[in-house]
Amino acid sequence: MSDLAASLDADDPLAHLREHFQLPRGVVYLDGNSLGALPRAVTDAVKDVVEKQWGEDLISSWNTHDWIRLPTRVGERIAPLIGAAPGQVLCTDSISVNLFKLLATAMDLNTPRRVILAVDEDFPTDAYIAQGIAQLLGEARCELRRVPASDIASALNEDVALLMLTEVNYRSGERHDMQKFTEAAHAVGAMVLWDLAHSAGVIPMELDALDVDMAVGCGYKYFNGGPGAPAFLYVNERHHPKARQPLSGWLGHKDPFAFSSQYDAGEGVQRYQAGTPPIISMVALNAALDVFEKATIKQIRAKSIALTEFFMEGLGSRGLLQTLACLTPRDAARRGSQVSVAHEHAWGLSQALIEAGVVVDFRAPDILRFGFAPLYNSFKDAESALNTLAVIIAEERYLEERFATRPTVT
Amino acid sequence: MSDLAASLDADDPLAHLREHFQLPRGVVYLDGNSLGALPRAVTDAVKDVVEKQWGEDLISSWNTHDWIRLPTRVGERIAPLIGAAPGQVLCTDSISVNLFKLLATAMDLNTPRRVILAVDEDFPTDAYIAQGIAQLLGEARCELRRVPASDIASALNEDVALLMLTEVNYRSGERHDMQKFTEAAHAVGAMVLWDLAHSAGVIPMELDALDVDMAVGCGYKYFNGGPGAPAFLYVNERHHPKARQPLSGWLGHKDPFAFSSQYDAGEGVQRYQAGTPPIISMVALNAALDVFEKATIKQIRAKSIALTEFFMEGLGSRGLLQTLACLTPRDAARRGSQVSVAHEHAWGLSQALIEAGVVVDFRAPDILRFGFAPLYNSFKDAESALNTLAVIIAEERYLEERFATRPTVT
Repeated sequence: MSDLAASLDADDPLAHLREHFQLPRGVVYLDGNSLGALPRAVTDAVKDVVEKQWGEDLISSWNTHDWIRLPTRVGERIAPLIGAAPGQVLCTDSISVNLFKLLATAMDLNTPRRVILAVDEDFPTDAYIAQGIAQLLGEARCELRRVPASDIASALNEDVALLMLTEVNYRSGERHDMQKFTEAAHAVGAMVLWDLAHSAGVIPMELDALDVDMAVGCGYKYFNGGPGAPAFLYVNERHHPKARQPLSGWLGHKDPFAFSSQYDAGEGVQRYQAGTPPIISMVALNAALDVFEKATIKQIRAKSIALTEFFMEGLGSRGLLQTLACLTPRDAARRGSQVSVAHEHAWGLSQALIEAGVVVDFRAPDILRFGFAPLYNSFKDAESALNTLAVIIAEERYLEERFATRPTVT
Repeated sequence: MSDLAASLDADDPLAHLREHFQLPRGVVYLDGNSLGALPRAVTDAVKDVVEKQWGEDLISSWNTHDWIRLPTRVGERIAPLIGAAPGQVLCTDSISVNLFKLLATAMDLNTPRRVILAVDEDFPTDAYIAQGIAQLLGEARCELRRVPASDIASALNEDVALLMLTEVNYRSGERHDMQKFTEAAHAVGAMVLWDLAHSAGVIPMELDALDVDMAVGCGYKYFNGGPGAPAFLYVNERHHPKARQPLSGWLGHKDPFAFSSQYDAGEGVQRYQAGTPPIISMVALNAALDVFEKATIKQIRAKSIALTEFFMEGLGSRGLLQTLACLTPRDAARRGSQVSVAHEHAWGLSQALIEAGVVVDFRAPDILRFGFAPLYNSFKDAESALNTLAVIIAEERYLEERFATRPTVT
């Protein structure tokens, strides 16, 4: 390890948090932007919910272990990390399902406007769900309009009911200015929905202060909630009096256990619950959030910037940018917590890195992503990745026969 | 224990399956119709998915442990238990969310018909979701019409796009004749959607043979998948060529990892996936299904009938039906796997039973439910419940002060 990496690790106020994660030996894990590593607290929490709460206490656990309020409790723990006052965040369903609920709300609140403005470069599920609701509602009521991110400002006009935007792009790692676009949307009377999948848990944000209308985010990336952990949603309280959503399942009812025949929406964000939530997966996410009580989100962001800075510096100083095109902005304020590079043989590179113990991921057709999770990644991790990458590129190992075929599911 | 209960247990070909469940000592658990007991196989499976698959193998588990096909794999294990050939069942989301997808499909396929016919007595979430979609689509395209179950036949006419019906009623335990109502719906050109929440896993059914259009069901009741386990849905393959659903998330895309900008629906039932599924909860359900390989669904039904028969006989022979009104049909073919009784002090009765170690549940305002799970309940359990109930009623223990106040959440 270089002196620089060693000294940065020695001075890192979050270095001790790595102990709260179970990480496989000999692996440099730089894919926390896709699936966060396992927090040690989760192991015990899951054992407890399965063997004690379910196995022993059975049905009574809905009350005695307060499963019934778990979506609210987890939501309220996420709220301060995204700048939301209590009563506006709920842990429920998946991002895709939550987007549907929120798009329906927005089209209803901002009627007769009919345009959902989305960005070509964002993760596809956002636009897929918008296509789904546009097709369901019909052209007269809803239209999905997609533009390149660079054209958002010019595409915002008084047709737009909702601007749907992801804070950090999943491919490039580029970060949008939440204040600028929120204000631009509001200036033309549009609402704004932020997808925080690649930023919540690693970038401080101020949803309330910026008067954001709605947001969705992910439990399994920087929150380390486990594979397919339930997602969360935010609805600004100024919309609560009129907000409706069509996935009006029984747990969103104001009194689910009255079993009344008419649906009456629950208070505020509660109405965004639909069916019975997957308790075991949600308990895992809840336990994963414990570690966020040991650091501030500002500290996490500072380390994230330092890690990505160190890595990008290293790409340059090792001459790797002669081979790799860096897609991630050099300006720290404009990037998330990943560094993405393009290379013709990105698939082979990703596989050679994984084989050498550096877990990164690949996005078709030519992108390699290095994700940095400040709660458990070290500067030593970043340096190991750089060193390994340099060797693989020098040896052109990515051209080897065994990396030639890319499976359809990656 | 009576000689009769002892001899029924001794002759029970499924008695040994109780060993596959972790049941608390000293408890007679008769609430498997609400939350199935913990199968021992789940404990190890959950430990493995958390500590090994997630903790050690991390992101690679989507391929190496085939998480990506888990919704399909679990669906295919449920399929034979509900009489469905492969390719039509998927484990995903909750019943509420799945109902929304299927109602949207049905309204689209059976347009210009606009009526969803539902039954007053069914579990409220079914009608709530229908209210949600009716409100979203507007009166011109969708209307929810609700009738008492006794009026279904007369309400079925050529306005009806879809009849939505639950096979076994959650309150009374009454079972509808699936063949009769499916044929009646088809006779007027309506589609039919069966909610199998209280019957899948405990009653044999023949969705394909009856030409049922669609169905939903629950993972956490008789399938013992754990609290809030993911649900399942069935779409008859004759609808696959034209079926569309609006929760068109990325995992329902025909090639999710191409990240293409246009949504192209996956093959057949795959298109009913939306977002990333909660893997830990789904792995629990998958492990819970193991025990269904040790018994046929016909054996399970035979034992279910024998248990409820024994219990109803016992209610009569102990004179308890002078105090309790039995809501469940005496004809075995017309009931599910629970016995429900009404009593003015049902809440106090339920609490006195639970205090005495017999776990049952209460449904407002006056129903007591005794659920029988043939995989782990014994005739001795049924007899203990009868004896305890008889004592509590004889002593009027349900009137005691500590049972006077019912909490709002039960």
